Amino acid sequence: MTDFSLYIGGKPTMSYVTNVVMYFTTQNAEAVIIKSRGKFISSAVEVAEVIQKQFLKDKVIISDVKIDSQELIAKDGKKVRVPTMEISLTKTD
Amino acid sequence: MTDFSLYIGGKPTMSYVTNVVMYFTTQNAEAVIIKSRGKFISSAVEVAEVIQKQFLKDKVIISDVKIDSQELIAKDGKKVRVPTMEISLTKTD
Repeated sequence: MTDFSLYIGGKPTMSYVTNVVMYFTTQNAEAVIIKSRGKFISSAVEVAEVIQKQFLKDKVIISDVKIDSQELIAKDGKKVRVPTMEISLTKTD
Repeated sequence: MTDFSLYIGGKPTMSYVTNVVMYFTTQNAEAVIIKSRGKFISSAVEVAEVIQKQFLKDKVIISDVKIDSQELIAKDGKKVRVPTMEISLTKTD
C-alpha cells in the first residue's frame, strides 16, 4: 500500500483540502496522514475537519490523532519545545 | 470526582502550564482536560507536551486527543468552520 501523507504549511486551507481529496479520489488512497508542527497545527485540524465534515462526509473519518514534540536549540542557545501532530484520515467502507 | 478543565487563550504558555500543574499537585486532580479552538489549538498542544515531557514527566500522560469543529456564521454572512480540540491529561499510578 502506498503511503500518502502531507505537511501543512502556510498555504490557504483549501489548497491542502484539495490535495487530500485528490489522494482519496483520483489516487485511490485508503488512508492519508496530515502532518504539522508549531503554529500550523491549528490549520491541520481545520483541513482534517473540512474533509471529514464537508468534502468527503461519510466517506472518510479521522481515525487517529497523535501529538508529540521535539526539543530544539534556538539560535540564541535557548531550548524550545516544538509541538507536532499527525492526523490519520481513513476511508470508511 | 471534580472535573478539572481549562480553556487556552492568548496568555503565555507557562501561565497555563502552571495552572494545570497546580490542579494535579495542590488540588489532587486525577485528570485535567485542556480545551482550545482556532489558532489557540497549537498552544494547547504545546502546553500538554511541556507538562507531559517536562514538569510532570512520568507522573501524567496524554490519555486522549479529540478534534472537532463548529460551523459558525461570520458577520459578513459567510459560513466559517472553526476547529476545536480537547486534550485529556491523566495521572499515571
